[in-house]
Amino acid sequence: MTTAEIPKKKGSILAGIKAGQTAVCTVGQEGKGLHYRGYAIADLAEKGTYEEVAYLLVYGELPTRGELEGFKKRLQGQRGLPADLKKTLEAIPKGTHPMDVMRTGCSMLGCLEPEGAFARQREVTERLLAAFPSILCYWWRFHQSGTRIETATDDASIAAHFLHLLHGKKPSEMHARAVDVSLILYAEHEFNASTFTARVIAGTMSDLHSCITGAIGALRGYLHGGANEGAMELIQRFTSPDQAEKSVIESLAKKEKLLGFGHPVYTVLDPRSDIIKGWSRKLSQDTGDKVMYPVSERIEQVMMREKKMFPNLDFYSASAYHFLGVPTGMFTPLFVFARTAGWAAHVFEQRADNKLIRPGAEYVGPANREYVALAQRG
Amino acid sequence: MTTAEIPKKKGSILAGIKAGQTAVCTVGQEGKGLHYRGYAIADLAEKGTYEEVAYLLVYGELPTRGELEGFKKRLQGQRGLPADLKKTLEAIPKGTHPMDVMRTGCSMLGCLEPEGAFARQREVTERLLAAFPSILCYWWRFHQSGTRIETATDDASIAAHFLHLLHGKKPSEMHARAVDVSLILYAEHEFNASTFTARVIAGTMSDLHSCITGAIGALRGYLHGGANEGAMELIQRFTSPDQAEKSVIESLAKKEKLLGFGHPVYTVLDPRSDIIKGWSRKLSQDTGDKVMYPVSERIEQVMMREKKMFPNLDFYSASAYHFLGVPTGMFTPLFVFARTAGWAAHVFEQRADNKLIRPGAEYVGPANREYVALAQRG
Repeated sequence: MTTAEIPKKKGSILAGIKAGQTAVCTVGQEGKGLHYRGYAIADLAEKGTYEEVAYLLVYGELPTRGELEGFKKRLQGQRGLPADLKKTLEAIPKGTHPMDVMRTGCSMLGCLEPEGAFARQREVTERLLAAFPSILCYWWRFHQSGTRIETATDDASIAAHFLHLLHGKKPSEMHARAVDVSLILYAEHEFNASTFTARVIAGTMSDLHSCITGAIGALRGYLHGGANEGAMELIQRFTSPDQAEKSVIESLAKKEKLLGFGHPVYTVLDPRSDIIKGWSRKLSQDTGDKVMYPVSERIEQVMMREKKMFPNLDFYSASAYHFLGVPTGMFTPLFVFARTAGWAAHVFEQRADNKLIRPGAEYVGPANREYVALAQRG
Repeated sequence: MTTAEIPKKKGSILAGIKAGQTAVCTVGQEGKGLHYRGYAIADLAEKGTYEEVAYLLVYGELPTRGELEGFKKRLQGQRGLPADLKKTLEAIPKGTHPMDVMRTGCSMLGCLEPEGAFARQREVTERLLAAFPSILCYWWRFHQSGTRIETATDDASIAAHFLHLLHGKKPSEMHARAVDVSLILYAEHEFNASTFTARVIAGTMSDLHSCITGAIGALRGYLHGGANEGAMELIQRFTSPDQAEKSVIESLAKKEKLLGFGHPVYTVLDPRSDIIKGWSRKLSQDTGDKVMYPVSERIEQVMMREKKMFPNLDFYSASAYHFLGVPTGMFTPLFVFARTAGWAAHVFEQRADNKLIRPGAEYVGPANREYVALAQRG
């Protein structure tokens, strides 16, 4: 989709309507808060690891050392992919959008390793957390170079596992930690559109793979997870901050929507933005970048000055991922790796106290009318 | 899932809350109405064909003879499956739930034939309408008998195409018409959970395959499309009406929920039930059945007498499909074939006037709390 196709309508449907209870997350307290199960996002991103956060979301409390060790060990042990999933990934063409690969890989895994009873829901979640980077990178490397990579590695974290598979070598600690923090920031966000999709699917008492597959489909859109790709597209248009400033002002005059700015829930700022911005700056220095980070900062300044709009998590994630050598098409799949923990936590909640989610509609179509036989229709 | 796992909570989340506008359908007028774009369901089911109804939903008006001919020709021409999709279907194990096959087949087709621009949305819809029976039956026949069937046939309708592929021979006109009517009845139902799923996904500006894949996942649940399988499971427990009556009364005393009865929107009756009941009776006579139809009728009587609950579309669909030789696991996929037209119509509507669908939540979790370092957690 091009920027021109992005609709300009503001606000969201069902905004402010409570579609259920949750103990997983609060978002937007005082216009800028984000807490996972009561813990502030800044603390989690500074002091925690993604595995701790995923455990917190999936099991409800931060793990003890023993619990964390067991959790990480189970994840490490489930990075391999079944042969029939590999066949499917090989059959998905090279030019496919990586989010379509994620959606299909998740659905196929649901065929090969069905959830069965809901009692297995945490087990299935761990498998998905472990296997998603393998699914993406197996497909990617196969179509880039014809290599059938071994996806079972001994890397200590999901972040390191992903970078290892992507680049074919173990990442530096700094790079692994950058991805790790980004996964923490993307892990959960209350009733956003993909999580709400997962809950609507869960509400019919469907299986976890169906919930996560649907959520991936929702995350793919430009008005949701796809925004980090859109932000990259924007940033990459420019070779200097001045050029970016001029062009952004022109776009704003044409009332074009720029991806990576503003948020349906935060009114003051996105509390995740400064954290990922810090990592983007650090990685920019690390790679000797002289363009992308300065361009990003200038766009941020212009958007604040001209529109009072703040960057959201997607904006600086784009450049951070780019500096890590992550292809743009993988930005939203990285969001999938992270958000799987949040999606699963919401599915568990929905199931624990389930009712079908079934809103009404305002009818604006034709009044009741007589059927006309085909022969009379001309 | 066993019947014991079905939650007993009544009502649905967001009931009565308008989550958007639609011109596709009204449901529940006077507690029992159903109109597709203004046409009463009874007229459509008696006088129309599924192809006419699908055209009505997808294009907005009943087709002229020329339009219908063109539509049917295009559908007929798109029944073949790409080799890479066949490979994937062959890799999906025999014991897989057919709804997982549908979900994965749809997602894979989205990789092989991506929508690209929204301008292609009707083209993609026609492809899905044409290909879904092929996807299901190719997988089924391959794993039943190792046959790689040719899915491109010259059958005049989707209903006949499906029965032809399933049984390996052209169906009788009566059988084809029975499936045809059932597809009309299942084609559309306003903001039900799977359609709402499709609209939430569409609201992020995602692609049509993501919307339909998610909808299939939602339809799979026992509280939605999966109910027709549940109804079959119930009916098949009994060898006589008296036995059924006794057992149903016992189940009701234990407050067990019986699938196929009641409805979140209809309060008086489900207007589709008597239509499919007529077909079930006709097919029962045709096959010489002396048990299943009488058992079904008795269950209906007991539920009305004891609980004032009426059968919904799923209840008599179960026996009707059974008499047509359709395996129980394919009941919900048949619902998919039908509802694809309705899902697509809603996605088009959502896109035409799009806003993100993003409700709020009531937070019931822990208050904000201090992060405790791992070393201090024991």
